[in-house]
Amino acid sequence: MTEKIIGVLGGMGPEATLNCFAKIIANTPAEKDQDHLRIIIDNNPKIPDRTSAILGAGESPVNAVVQSAQALKNAGADFIIIPCVTVHYFYDQFAPKSPLPILSILDVVAQAIKAEHPDLKKIGLMATNGTVQSGIFQERLARENIETLVCDADHQERVMQAIYGLKSSPTQEARQQITATFQAAAQSLVKKGAQGIVAGCTEIPLALSQEHLDVPYFDALDLLARAAIRQAGREPK
Amino acid sequence: MTEKIIGVLGGMGPEATLNCFAKIIANTPAEKDQDHLRIIIDNNPKIPDRTSAILGAGESPVNAVVQSAQALKNAGADFIIIPCVTVHYFYDQFAPKSPLPILSILDVVAQAIKAEHPDLKKIGLMATNGTVQSGIFQERLARENIETLVCDADHQERVMQAIYGLKSSPTQEARQQITATFQAAAQSLVKKGAQGIVAGCTEIPLALSQEHLDVPYFDALDLLARAAIRQAGREPK
Repeated sequence: MTEKIIGVLGGMGPEATLNCFAKIIANTPAEKDQDHLRIIIDNNPKIPDRTSAILGAGESPVNAVVQSAQALKNAGADFIIIPCVTVHYFYDQFAPKSPLPILSILDVVAQAIKAEHPDLKKIGLMATNGTVQSGIFQERLARENIETLVCDADHQERVMQAIYGLKSSPTQEARQQITATFQAAAQSLVKKGAQGIVAGCTEIPLALSQEHLDVPYFDALDLLARAAIRQAGREPK
Repeated sequence: MTEKIIGVLGGMGPEATLNCFAKIIANTPAEKDQDHLRIIIDNNPKIPDRTSAILGAGESPVNAVVQSAQALKNAGADFIIIPCVTVHYFYDQFAPKSPLPILSILDVVAQAIKAEHPDLKKIGLMATNGTVQSGIFQERLARENIETLVCDADHQERVMQAIYGLKSSPTQEARQQITATFQAAAQSLVKKGAQGIVAGCTEIPLALSQEHLDVPYFDALDLLARAAIRQAGREPK
Protein backbone atom coordinates (compact mmCIF):
# COMPACT_ATOMS: atom_id res chain seq x y z
CA MET A 1 0.00 0.00 0.00
CA THR A 2 1.27 3.44 -0.89
CA GLU A 3 1.77 5.66 2.13
CA LYS A 4 -0.28 8.83 2.30
CA ILE A 5 1.18 12.21 3.17
CA ILE A 6 -0.06 13.60 6.50
CA GLY A 7 -1.06 17.28 6.58
CA VAL A 8 -0.90 18.97 9.97
CA LEU A 9 -2.91 22.17 10.17
CA GLY A 10 -1.21 23.72 13.15
CA GLY A 11 -0.11 26.79 15.04
CA MET A 12 -3.00 26.67 17.52
CA GLY A 13 -0.69 26.91 19.44
CA PRO A 14 2.74 26.14 18.03
CA GLU A 15 3.70 24.01 21.06
CA ALA A 16 0.76 21.66 20.53
CA THR A 17 1.77 21.34 16.87
CA LEU A 18 5.34 20.58 17.91
CA ASN A 19 4.04 18.03 20.39
CA CYS A 20 1.85 16.39 17.73
CA PHE A 21 4.79 16.21 15.30
CA ALA A 22 6.91 14.61 18.06
CA LYS A 23 4.19 12.04 18.78
CA ILE A 24 3.86 11.07 15.10
CA ILE A 25 7.63 10.58 14.85
CA ALA A 26 7.85 8.67 18.15
CA ASN A 27 4.96 6.36 17.26
CA THR A 28 6.14 5.49 13.73
CA PRO A 29 8.13 2.25 13.58
CA ALA A 30 11.38 3.19 11.83
CA GLU A 31 14.94 1.94 11.60
CA LYS A 32 16.13 4.74 9.35
CA ASP A 33 14.96 8.16 8.09
CA GLN A 34 13.30 6.68 5.00
CA ASP A 35 11.01 4.50 7.18
CA HIS A 36 9.36 7.63 8.58
CA LEU A 37 6.24 9.20 7.12
CA ARG A 38 6.18 12.33 5.03
CA ILE A 39 4.40 15.05 7.01
CA ILE A 40 3.60 18.53 5.77
CA ILE A 41 2.93 21.03 8.54
CA ASP A 42 1.41 24.46 8.17
CA ASN A 43 2.20 26.04 11.52
CA ASN A 44 -0.13 29.00 11.06
CA PRO A 45 -0.37 30.87 14.36
CA LYS A 46 -2.04 33.79 12.57
CA ILE A 47 -5.40 31.95 12.62
CA PRO A 48 -7.78 34.13 14.71
CA ASP A 49 -8.16 33.20 18.39
CA ARG A 50 -10.69 30.39 18.73
CA THR A 51 -11.88 31.15 22.25
CA SER A 52 -12.64 34.80 21.39
CA ALA A 53 -14.60 33.68 18.34
CA ILE A 54 -16.63 31.16 20.37
CA LEU A 55 -17.45 33.89 22.87
CA GLY A 56 -18.55 36.13 19.97
CA ALA A 57 -15.75 38.60 20.73
CA GLY A 58 -13.50 38.05 17.72
CA GLU A 59 -13.16 37.09 14.07
CA SER A 60 -14.07 33.53 13.06
CA PRO A 61 -11.10 31.22 12.35
CA VAL A 62 -13.01 29.39 9.59
CA ASN A 63 -11.62 31.21 6.53
CA ALA A 64 -8.04 31.03 7.79
CA VAL A 65 -8.40 27.31 8.50
CA VAL A 66 -9.70 26.71 4.96
CA GLN A 67 -6.78 28.71 3.51
CA SER A 68 -4.29 26.60 5.48
CA ALA A 69 -6.04 23.44 4.28
CA GLN A 70 -5.57 24.69 0.71
CA ALA A 71 -1.87 25.39 1.40
CA LEU A 72 -1.45 21.81 2.67
CA LYS A 73 -3.13 20.45 -0.46
CA ASN A 74 -0.92 22.62 -2.66
CA ALA A 75 2.13 21.13 -0.96
CA GLY A 76 0.92 17.60 -1.61
CA ALA A 77 -0.78 16.46 1.62
CA ASP A 78 -3.45 13.75 1.27
CA PHE A 79 -5.45 14.39 4.44
CA ILE A 80 -5.39 16.71 7.46
CA ILE A 81 -5.29 16.58 11.23
CA ILE A 82 -5.60 19.64 13.48
CA PRO A 83 -3.77 19.44 16.83
CA CYS A 84 -6.09 21.87 18.60
CA VAL A 85 -9.24 20.74 20.35
CA THR A 86 -10.95 24.13 20.59
CA VAL A 87 -11.02 24.86 16.86
CA HIS A 88 -13.09 21.69 16.38
CA TYR A 89 -16.01 23.78 17.65
CA PHE A 90 -16.07 25.10 14.05
CA TYR A 91 -15.52 21.69 12.38
CA ASP A 92 -18.92 21.61 10.67
CA GLN A 93 -18.18 25.02 9.14
CA PHE A 94 -14.64 24.44 7.82
CA ALA A 95 -14.64 20.72 6.97
CA PRO A 96 -17.08 21.02 4.01
CA LYS A 97 -14.98 23.88 2.55
CA SER A 98 -11.66 22.07 2.94
CA PRO A 99 -10.12 20.66 -0.26
CA LEU A 100 -8.82 17.68 1.79
CA PRO A 101 -10.55 15.38 4.30
CA ILE A 102 -9.97 16.44 7.94
CA LEU A 103 -9.82 13.81 10.69
CA SER A 104 -11.75 15.19 13.67
CA ILE A 105 -9.96 14.84 17.02
CA LEU A 106 -13.40 14.43 18.62
CA ASP A 107 -14.23 11.48 16.36
CA VAL A 108 -10.82 9.96 17.07
CA VAL A 109 -11.33 10.14 20.84
CA ALA A 110 -14.92 8.86 20.63
CA GLN A 111 -13.87 5.93 18.44
CA ALA A 112 -10.93 5.06 20.71
CA ILE A 113 -13.17 4.91 23.77
CA LYS A 114 -15.71 2.72 21.94
CA ALA A 115 -13.00 0.42 20.56
CA GLU A 116 -10.95 0.02 23.74
CA HIS A 117 -13.70 0.19 26.39
CA PRO A 118 -17.07 -0.49 24.73
CA ASP A 119 -18.86 -0.73 28.10
CA LEU A 120 -17.73 2.66 29.32
CA LYS A 121 -20.74 4.88 29.99
CA LYS A 122 -19.34 7.88 31.91
CA ILE A 123 -16.12 9.69 31.15
CA GLY A 124 -14.39 12.52 33.00
CA LEU A 125 -13.14 15.44 30.88
CA MET A 126 -10.07 17.44 31.81
CA ALA A 127 -9.57 20.42 29.53
CA THR A 128 -9.41 24.21 29.39
CA ASN A 129 -12.41 26.30 30.43
CA GLY A 130 -13.04 27.08 26.76
CA THR A 131 -13.20 23.44 25.71
CA VAL A 132 -15.34 22.46 28.69
CA GLN A 133 -17.77 25.34 28.19
CA SER A 134 -18.01 24.91 24.42
CA GLY A 135 -19.53 21.49 25.02
CA ILE A 136 -17.87 19.92 21.96
CA PHE A 137 -16.66 16.78 23.72
CA GLN A 138 -19.93 16.40 25.61
CA GLU A 139 -21.99 16.63 22.40
CA ARG A 140 -19.77 14.25 20.41
CA LEU A 141 -19.57 11.64 23.17
CA ALA A 142 -23.33 11.81 23.80
CA ARG A 143 -23.75 10.52 20.23
CA GLU A 144 -21.95 7.35 21.44
CA ASN A 145 -24.19 7.22 24.52
CA ILE A 146 -21.30 8.26 26.72
CA GLU A 147 -22.01 10.83 29.43
CA THR A 148 -19.25 13.40 29.99
CA LEU A 149 -18.55 14.56 33.55
CA VAL A 150 -16.68 17.81 34.10
CA CYS A 151 -14.81 19.15 37.12
CA ASP A 152 -16.57 21.26 39.71
CA ALA A 153 -15.66 24.97 39.62
CA ASP A 154 -12.91 24.66 42.21
CA HIS A 155 -11.04 21.79 40.50
CA GLN A 156 -11.64 23.33 37.06
CA GLU A 157 -10.01 26.57 38.23
CA ARG A 158 -6.99 24.64 39.55
CA VAL A 159 -6.72 22.56 36.36
CA MET A 160 -6.79 25.76 34.29
CA GLN A 161 -4.04 27.33 36.44
CA ALA A 162 -1.97 24.14 36.18
CA ILE A 163 -2.30 24.16 32.37
CA TYR A 164 -0.98 27.74 32.28
CA GLY A 165 1.75 26.68 34.71
CA LEU A 166 2.88 24.02 32.22
CA LYS A 167 3.15 26.64 29.49
CA SER A 168 5.77 28.57 31.47
CA SER A 169 8.62 26.00 31.76
CA PRO A 170 7.95 24.85 35.35
CA THR A 171 10.67 23.61 37.71
CA GLN A 172 10.73 19.91 38.61
CA GLU A 173 9.04 20.74 41.93
CA ALA A 174 6.34 22.88 40.29
CA ARG A 175 5.70 20.09 37.79
CA GLN A 176 5.15 17.59 40.62
CA GLN A 177 2.67 20.00 42.14
CA ILE A 178 0.87 20.23 38.80
CA THR A 179 0.73 16.43 38.55
CA ALA A 180 -0.82 16.35 42.03
CA THR A 181 -3.41 18.95 40.97
CA PHE A 182 -4.36 16.94 37.87
CA GLN A 183 -4.48 13.73 39.88
CA ALA A 184 -6.81 15.28 42.46
CA ALA A 185 -9.09 16.62 39.70
CA ALA A 186 -9.16 13.19 38.01
CA GLN A 187 -9.96 11.51 41.34
CA SER A 188 -12.83 13.93 41.92
CA LEU A 189 -14.24 12.92 38.52
CA VAL A 190 -13.85 9.22 39.35
CA LYS A 191 -15.64 9.85 42.63
CA LYS A 192 -18.52 11.33 40.62
CA GLY A 193 -18.70 8.13 38.57
CA ALA A 194 -16.22 8.61 35.71
CA GLN A 195 -14.95 5.24 34.40
CA GLY A 196 -12.18 6.87 32.40
CA ILE A 197 -10.45 10.23 31.93
CA VAL A 198 -9.98 12.19 28.71
CA ALA A 199 -7.06 14.62 28.52
CA GLY A 200 -8.79 17.02 26.19
CA CYS A 201 -5.99 19.55 26.23
CA THR A 202 -2.54 19.08 24.77
CA GLU A 203 -0.70 20.31 27.87
CA ILE A 204 -2.23 17.90 30.42
CA PRO A 205 -0.29 14.79 29.29
CA LEU A 206 2.97 16.67 29.93
CA ALA A 207 2.26 16.14 33.65
CA LEU A 208 -0.35 13.34 33.80
CA SER A 209 0.02 9.84 32.45
CA GLN A 210 -1.75 6.49 32.81
CA GLU A 211 0.46 5.52 35.76
CA HIS A 212 -1.10 8.34 37.80
CA LEU A 213 -4.60 6.96 37.32
CA ASP A 214 -6.57 3.82 38.27
CA VAL A 215 -9.01 4.20 35.35
CA PRO A 216 -8.35 4.21 31.56
CA TYR A 217 -6.75 7.41 30.30
CA PHE A 218 -7.35 8.85 26.82
CA ASP A 219 -4.81 11.39 25.61
CA ALA A 220 -6.56 13.18 22.74
CA LEU A 221 -3.35 14.37 21.05
CA ASP A 222 -1.68 10.99 21.30
CA LEU A 223 -4.77 9.31 19.85
CA LEU A 224 -4.83 11.87 17.00
CA ALA A 225 -1.15 11.21 16.17
CA ARG A 226 -1.78 7.46 16.12
CA ALA A 227 -4.90 7.86 13.99
CA ALA A 228 -2.87 9.92 11.49
CA ILE A 229 -0.22 7.20 11.26
CA ARG A 230 -2.95 4.63 10.58
CA GLN A 231 -4.65 6.88 8.03
CA ALA A 232 -1.28 7.25 6.27
CA GLY A 233 -1.17 3.47 5.91
CA ARG A 234 1.11 2.40 8.76
CA GLU A 235 0.54 0.68 12.09
CA PRO A 236 1.69 2.86 15.02
CA LYS A 237 4.04 1.47 17.68
CA MET B 1 7.58 45.19 7.83
CA THR B 2 5.52 42.23 6.66
CA GLU B 3 6.67 38.94 8.15
CA LYS B 4 7.90 36.30 5.75
CA ILE B 5 6.81 32.66 5.89
CA ILE B 6 9.62 30.27 6.84
CA GLY B 7 9.92 27.06 4.82
CA VAL B 8 11.63 24.16 6.57
CA LEU B 9 12.84 21.46 4.19
CA GLY B 10 13.14 18.63 6.66
CA GLY B 11 13.02 14.95 7.40
CA MET B 12 16.80 14.49 7.34
CA GLY B 13 16.16 13.19 9.98
CA PRO B 14 12.74 13.93 11.47
CA GLU B 15 14.20 14.54 14.95
CA ALA B 16 16.50 17.30 13.70
CA THR B 17 13.49 18.88 11.97
CA LEU B 18 11.47 18.66 15.17
CA ASN B 19 14.39 20.18 17.08
CA CYS B 20 14.67 23.02 14.55
CA PHE B 21 10.93 23.72 14.81
CA ALA B 22 11.25 23.77 18.62
CA LYS B 23 14.16 26.22 18.43
CA ILE B 24 12.29 28.61 16.12
CA ILE B 25 9.29 28.60 18.46
CA ALA B 26 11.44 29.00 21.60
CA ASN B 27 13.46 31.87 20.12
CA THR B 28 10.50 33.87 18.80
CA PRO B 29 9.34 36.59 21.19
CA ALA B 30 5.61 35.96 21.65
CA GLU B 31 2.91 36.65 24.20
CA LYS B 32 0.19 34.81 22.30
CA ASP B 33 -0.18 32.38 19.38
CA GLN B 34 -0.60 35.19 16.83
CA ASP B 35 2.84 36.66 17.75
CA HIS B 36 4.52 33.49 16.45
CA LEU B 37 5.79 33.10 12.90
CA ARG B 38 4.08 31.10 10.22
CA ILE B 39 6.28 28.11 9.38
CA ILE B 40 5.63 25.55 6.67
CA ILE B 41 7.50 22.29 7.15
CA ASP B 42 7.93 19.54 4.60
CA ASN B 43 9.17 16.68 6.74
CA ASN B 44 10.25 14.51 3.83
CA PRO B 45 12.21 11.55 5.18
CA LYS B 46 11.97 9.86 1.77
CA ILE B 47 14.86 11.98 0.45
CA PRO B 48 17.66 9.53 -0.47
CA ASP B 49 20.38 8.97 2.14
CA ARG B 50 22.96 11.75 1.92
CA THR B 51 25.93 9.84 3.26
CA SER B 52 25.45 6.98 0.76
CA ALA B 53 25.24 9.49 -2.08
CA ILE B 54 28.43 11.28 -0.97
CA LEU B 55 30.22 7.93 -0.86
CA GLY B 56 28.95 7.21 -4.39
CA ALA B 57 26.91 4.27 -3.13
CA GLY B 58 23.38 5.63 -3.55
CA GLU B 59 21.00 7.90 -5.42
CA SER B 60 21.62 11.64 -5.25
CA PRO B 61 19.21 13.58 -3.00
CA VAL B 62 19.24 16.61 -5.32
CA ASN B 63 16.01 15.97 -7.26
CA ALA B 64 14.05 15.10 -4.11
CA VAL B 65 15.30 18.26 -2.39
CA VAL B 66 14.22 20.39 -5.34
CA GLN B 67 10.77 18.71 -5.32
CA SER B 68 10.36 19.50 -1.61
CA ALA B 69 11.43 23.08 -2.24
CA GLN B 70 8.68 23.30 -4.88
CA ALA B 71 6.14 21.85 -2.39
CA LEU B 72 7.12 24.53 0.15
CA LYS B 73 6.71 27.24 -2.48
CA ASN B 74 3.31 25.82 -3.47
CA ALA B 75 2.21 26.06 0.17
CA GLY B 76 3.26 29.71 0.37
CA ALA B 77 6.74 29.70 1.97
CA ASP B 78 8.98 32.68 1.14
CA PHE B 79 12.40 31.15 1.79
CA ILE B 80 13.87 27.85 2.96
CA ILE B 81 16.15 26.47 5.65
CA ILE B 82 17.34 22.85 5.77
CA PRO B 83 18.01 21.43 9.26
CA CYS B 84 20.56 18.86 8.06
CA VAL B 85 24.25 19.66 7.74
CA THR B 86 25.22 16.74 5.50
CA VAL B 87 22.84 17.56 2.64
CA HIS B 88 24.61 20.92 2.27
CA TYR B 89 27.36 18.95 0.51
CA PHE B 90 24.97 19.19 -2.49
CA TYR B 91 24.02 22.86 -1.93
CA ASP B 92 25.59 24.10 -5.18
CA GLN B 93 23.57 21.49 -7.10
CA PHE B 94 20.11 22.04 -5.58
CA ALA B 95 20.12 25.75 -4.69
CA PRO B 96 20.15 27.00 -8.33
CA LYS B 97 17.21 24.68 -9.16
CA SER B 98 15.13 25.67 -6.10
CA PRO B 99 12.17 27.99 -6.75
CA LEU B 100 12.87 29.71 -3.39
CA PRO B 101 16.10 31.04 -1.85
CA ILE B 102 17.73 28.57 0.56
CA LEU B 103 19.72 29.86 3.56
CA SER B 104 22.85 27.69 3.84
CA ILE B 105 23.59 26.43 7.36
CA LEU B 106 27.31 26.66 6.47
CA ASP B 107 26.97 30.35 5.59
CA VAL B 108 25.00 30.96 8.77
CA VAL B 109 27.72 29.38 10.96
CA ALA B 110 30.54 31.14 9.10
CA GLN B 111 28.80 34.49 9.42
CA ALA B 112 28.06 33.96 13.12
CA ILE B 113 31.70 33.22 13.86
CA LYS B 114 32.86 36.31 11.92
CA ALA B 115 30.26 38.53 13.58
CA GLU B 116 30.69 37.34 17.16
CA HIS B 117 34.43 36.55 17.18
CA PRO B 118 36.10 38.31 14.24
CA ASP B 119 39.61 37.47 15.51
CA LEU B 120 39.00 33.74 15.71
CA LYS B 121 41.43 31.90 13.40
CA LYS B 122 41.09 28.22 14.40
CA ILE B 123 37.86 26.40 15.17
CA GLY B 124 37.26 22.85 16.39
CA LEU B 125 34.57 20.86 14.54
CA MET B 126 32.49 18.24 16.29
CA ALA B 127 30.25 16.35 13.88
CA THR B 128 29.49 12.95 12.37
CA ASN B 129 32.16 11.10 10.40
CA GLY B 130 30.24 11.93 7.22
CA THR B 131 30.23 15.68 7.84
CA VAL B 132 33.89 15.69 8.93
CA GLN B 133 35.04 13.62 5.94
CA SER B 134 32.93 15.54 3.40
CA GLY B 135 35.00 18.64 4.23
CA ILE B 136 32.03 21.01 3.79
CA PHE B 137 32.64 23.00 6.99
CA GLN B 138 36.42 23.07 6.39
CA GLU B 139 35.97 24.42 2.85
CA ARG B 140 33.36 27.03 3.81
CA LEU B 141 35.29 28.30 6.85
CA ALA B 142 38.55 28.45 4.87
CA ARG B 143 36.85 31.07 2.70
CA GLU B 144 36.69 33.21 5.88
CA ASN B 145 40.35 32.44 6.64
CA ILE B 146 39.34 30.20 9.51
CA GLU B 147 41.18 26.91 9.91
CA THR B 148 39.04 23.95 10.98
CA LEU B 149 40.54 21.40 13.37
CA VAL B 150 38.96 17.96 13.60
CA CYS B 151 39.18 15.28 16.28
CA ASP B 152 41.84 12.59 16.12
CA ALA B 153 40.56 9.15 15.13
CA ASP B 154 40.08 8.01 18.73
CA HIS B 155 37.99 11.01 19.87
CA GLN B 156 36.09 11.05 16.55
CA GLU B 157 35.10 7.42 17.07
CA ARG B 158 33.86 8.18 20.60
CA VAL B 159 31.97 11.30 19.42
CA MET B 160 30.29 9.23 16.71
CA GLN B 161 29.26 6.56 19.25
CA ALA B 162 27.97 9.25 21.61
CA ILE B 163 25.86 10.78 18.82
CA TYR B 164 24.27 7.38 18.17
CA GLY B 165 23.84 6.98 21.93
CA LEU B 166 21.80 10.19 22.01
CA LYS B 167 19.51 8.86 19.28
CA SER B 168 18.44 5.95 21.48
CA SER B 169 16.79 7.72 24.45
CA PRO B 170 19.70 7.45 26.93
CA THR B 171 19.24 7.24 30.69
CA GLN B 172 20.30 10.23 32.80
CA GLU B 173 23.52 8.43 33.69
CA ALA B 174 24.29 7.53 30.06
CA ARG B 175 23.65 11.13 29.06
CA GLN B 176 26.17 12.38 31.63
CA GLN B 177 28.70 9.96 30.18
CA ILE B 178 27.96 11.33 26.71
CA THR B 179 28.46 14.89 27.95
CA ALA B 180 31.83 13.84 29.40
CA THR B 181 32.78 12.27 26.04
CA PHE B 182 31.88 15.45 24.13
CA GLN B 183 33.69 17.59 26.70
CA ALA B 184 36.86 15.50 26.39
CA ALA B 185 36.72 15.71 22.59
CA ALA B 186 36.23 19.50 22.75
CA GLN B 187 39.16 19.83 25.17
CA SER B 188 41.36 17.82 22.83
CA LEU B 189 40.50 20.29 20.05
CA VAL B 190 41.25 23.27 22.31
CA LYS B 191 44.59 21.67 23.18
CA LYS B 192 45.36 21.53 19.44
CA GLY B 193 44.68 25.27 19.21
CA ALA B 194 40.92 25.60 18.63
CA GLN B 195 39.64 28.98 19.86
CA GLY B 196 36.01 27.90 19.57
CA ILE B 197 33.89 24.78 18.99
CA VAL B 198 31.25 24.20 16.32
CA ALA B 199 28.52 21.66 17.05
CA GLY B 200 28.06 20.65 13.43
CA CYS B 201 25.56 17.93 14.19
CA THR B 202 22.06 18.42 15.55
CA GLU B 203 22.40 15.81 18.29
CA ILE B 204 25.50 17.21 20.03
CA PRO B 205 23.74 20.19 21.69
CA LEU B 206 21.37 17.75 23.41
CA ALA B 207 24.29 16.87 25.71
CA LEU B 208 26.80 19.72 25.30
CA SER B 209 26.18 23.39 25.99
CA GLN B 210 28.27 26.55 26.45
CA GLU B 211 28.52 25.93 30.22
CA HIS B 212 30.58 22.79 29.52
CA LEU B 213 33.20 24.76 27.56
CA ASP B 214 35.77 27.51 28.23
CA VAL B 215 35.77 28.69 24.60
CA PRO B 216 32.93 30.09 22.43
CA TYR B 217 30.44 27.44 21.28
CA PHE B 218 28.54 27.60 18.00
CA ASP B 219 25.44 25.40 17.75
CA ALA B 220 24.76 25.17 14.01
CA LEU B 221 21.06 24.31 14.38
CA ASP B 222 20.41 27.04 16.92
CA LEU B 223 22.15 29.58 14.67
CA LEU B 224 20.05 28.39 11.71
CA ALA B 225 16.81 28.78 13.68
CA ARG B 226 17.81 32.30 14.74
CA ALA B 227 18.83 33.22 11.19
CA ALA B 228 15.43 32.03 9.95
CA ILE B 229 13.62 34.21 12.50
CA ARG B 230 15.69 37.22 11.36
CA GLN B 231 15.09 36.43 7.70
CA ALA B 232 11.34 36.30 8.45
CA GLY B 233 11.59 39.86 9.75
CA ARG B 234 11.75 39.37 13.52
CA GLU B 235 14.50 39.69 16.10
CA PRO B 236 15.11 36.38 17.94
CA LYS B 237 15.13 36.28 21.75
